[in-house]
Amino acid sequence: MGRIVTLTTDFGSREGYVGAMKGVILGIDPSATIVDISHGIEPQNVAQAAFVLGSSYSYFPPGTVHLIVVDPGVGTARKAVLLDTASHCFLAPDNGTLSYVLEANPEHRAFALTNTRYWRQQVSRTFHGRDIFAPVAGHLSRGVAPKEFGEPLDSLFTLHLPRPERTGDVLAGEVIHVDTFGNLTTNFKESDLPPGRADVEVGSHTMPGLSESYAEGGDLLAIMGSSGYLEIAAPDGSAATRLGARVGQRVILRAWQP
Amino acid sequence: MGRIVTLTTDFGSREGYVGAMKGVILGIDPSATIVDISHGIEPQNVAQAAFVLGSSYSYFPPGTVHLIVVDPGVGTARKAVLLDTASHCFLAPDNGTLSYVLEANPEHRAFALTNTRYWRQQVSRTFHGRDIFAPVAGHLSRGVAPKEFGEPLDSLFTLHLPRPERTGDVLAGEVIHVDTFGNLTTNFKESDLPPGRADVEVGSHTMPGLSESYAEGGDLLAIMGSSGYLEIAAPDGSAATRLGARVGQRVILRAWQP
Amino acid sequence: MGRIVTLTTDFGSREGYVGAMKGVILGIDPSATIVDISHGIEPQNVAQAAFVLGSSYSYFPPGTVHLIVVDPGVGTARKAVLLDTASHCFLAPDNGTLSYVLEANPEHRAFALTNTRYWRQQVSRTFHGRDIFAPVAGHLSRGVAPKEFGEPLDSLFTLHLPRPERTGDVLAGEVIHVDTFGNLTTNFKESDLPPGRADVEVGSHTMPGLSESYAEGGDLLAIMGSSGYLEIAAPDGSAATRLGARVGQRVILRAWQP
Repeated sequence: MGRIVTLTTDFGSREGYVGAMKGVILGIDPSATIVDISHGIEPQNVAQAAFVLGSSYSYFPPGTVHLIVVDPGVGTARKAVLLDTASHCFLAPDNGTLSYVLEANPEHRAFALTNTRYWRQQVSRTFHGRDIFAPVAGHLSRGVAPKEFGEPLDSLFTLHLPRPERTGDVLAGEVIHVDTFGNLTTNFKESDLPPGRADVEVGSHTMPGLSESYAEGGDLLAIMGSSGYLEIAAPDGSAATRLGARVGQRVILRAWQP
Repeated sequence: MGRIVTLTTDFGSREGYVGAMKGVILGIDPSATIVDISHGIEPQNVAQAAFVLGSSYSYFPPGTVHLIVVDPGVGTARKAVLLDTASHCFLAPDNGTLSYVLEANPEHRAFALTNTRYWRQQVSRTFHGRDIFAPVAGHLSRGVAPKEFGEPLDSLFTLHLPRPERTGDVLAGEVIHVDTFGNLTTNFKESDLPPGRADVEVGSHTMPGLSESYAEGGDLLAIMGSSGYLEIAAPDGSAATRLGARVGQRVILRAWQP
Repeated sequence: MGRIVTLTTDFGSREGYVGAMKGVILGIDPSATIVDISHGIEPQNVAQAAFVLGSSYSYFPPGTVHLIVVDPGVGTARKAVLLDTASHCFLAPDNGTLSYVLEANPEHRAFALTNTRYWRQQVSRTFHGRDIFAPVAGHLSRGVAPKEFGEPLDSLFTLHLPRPERTGDVLAGEVIHVDTFGNLTTNFKESDLPPGRADVEVGSHTMPGLSESYAEGGDLLAIMGSSGYLEIAAPDGSAATRLGARVGQRVILRAWQP
């Protein structure tokens, strides 16, 4: 049984880019099981890729190789890196894509992908996903040790992941992701919630307390989402549209005064 | 060789939801072969999911596990169920998604997914696809018997699947599915067709007889489709747009008077 | 380890068509590894399918079976064919989809898919992908020899693939593909480039010389693309929109006078 290699890119679903990467991986490790996480990341949206990866990678079994190619800096001096945590390996440009993974895995090793022995012989200017990342993923899947791919790195580039700020009974957070259906993911984790009831405010709209299911209905509702963050959803539509909200939108959690 | 597990959801292709489900399945049964049927079902469109599943499941080999998550009632009292026919297993919310499968397989057994032993340890409020259905699919794929997952059920919820009604030489049916390209699938089966020529009428438009291929052209044509139902297509565009037709649109099949 | 079977279609991602094809293939060869190249080809756009296939097939290992179903002529007298090159097999309607493959592989054998023994028992009028091509792919993947599937063919239908024309220091080419992001692929190959600097002209817009990476920025840039052709890109948007360009748009490469 081969290893699992997941793919997350902004290549869309029409062109042959993803297919070419899979061909390269399977040419090196025919036993690899390739799984698409997403090819629908908005072009060059590194923060979105970071969130999508961060909310899915941990459900894969130990030994999985995650390959992420959302790479506005392809062909520049930005590094290509390998991140090795206790249980998974990640391959990505060093542009912040791995920020949520790094936050959750303070213990890790990182390497620059500099050993050209594991690259395709010809490397294009514009498609390192196919010419560097895919062959490295294939060799990693076959069992080559992480340290073989290049020199150790002390630190990786990370996005600023804002944490909510508390002032008395008020916790001020923000929207960190808007999904395809317009659901808003905030940066409030379960552990941020006050023990009793709390109202959730976005702009002039207040959601009175948290709901237990989407089916409770209402125009808009706040609910603990499956990614471990508080979400705001419009059961029959798009919360993003209804609230005119985007990533960065301020969200207030106000604990009730008993 | 592991079993095949197919997936049909309304999760779209950008988020990490489908990836997380695949990770859970492969973590339990690394030998499973996962095949996407569709992740492009319109949000919460149970009837569409039922049709897409109904027109594809039977082409998979015996032993296939089909997992369908179009689940507007997630987190409510709606049941999660396992349907076992002579040759395939199906996992879905009990909301009508399996209606075409049930119609084609009157002999079957059904179970409620109540045995928490086969669920993920933590079950979210909003994503039973990942936390209940995916692990059950993994265990089913590994060979756990259907009856282990919960108590038997006497009946499942089904959508009303309308049949054409005959009045003399006129058969009145309706559109049951509109595909991505605007082709209209009606509820006329091959066995409903009169022995001779018949005209097909939609609103004020009449198609004179059935065509043998899309390439016969014409503005609009009627043809026996690959799903076993009469279809109405516009060879160079969308029949749905041209006719202003949607699911439920009345369609008349009028046998010729010799 | 089974063979790889790739799929390229214009079926989109919502319906069950692709799933049904995969079910048929896996029913015949459970060890096949199925890889999607694209299901997002524009409906009936044979030239687009030809380019997408042409830019990805060669990255798959020897022995791969490529199945392409963009088939406006389904149900007519157009042939279904098998193309066998030194290293890969291709299955497609004989409509030009294989043009780039044929250009790159002058040595090949071709067969008409006429041996009904390898088809599904019932063949629909509208879905030969499922009823002819998929079962043939399954049998080919299992090891049936190409010549078993039907009679040899002397030639296949090919699209006209225009080559740039030289007049003094000016080379006149054209756009042969517009990708999802609006990048323009021209028909200038690396070997067509003059030894020194050359300007690239599209309509009234001139790009002064070639860029080394997308990150060099600028409104529009010309760069040797990963498919081996000169590309024109707008680093922060769509070159196609900015230039009002489509397939067939004339592009001039003008060598500098030293």
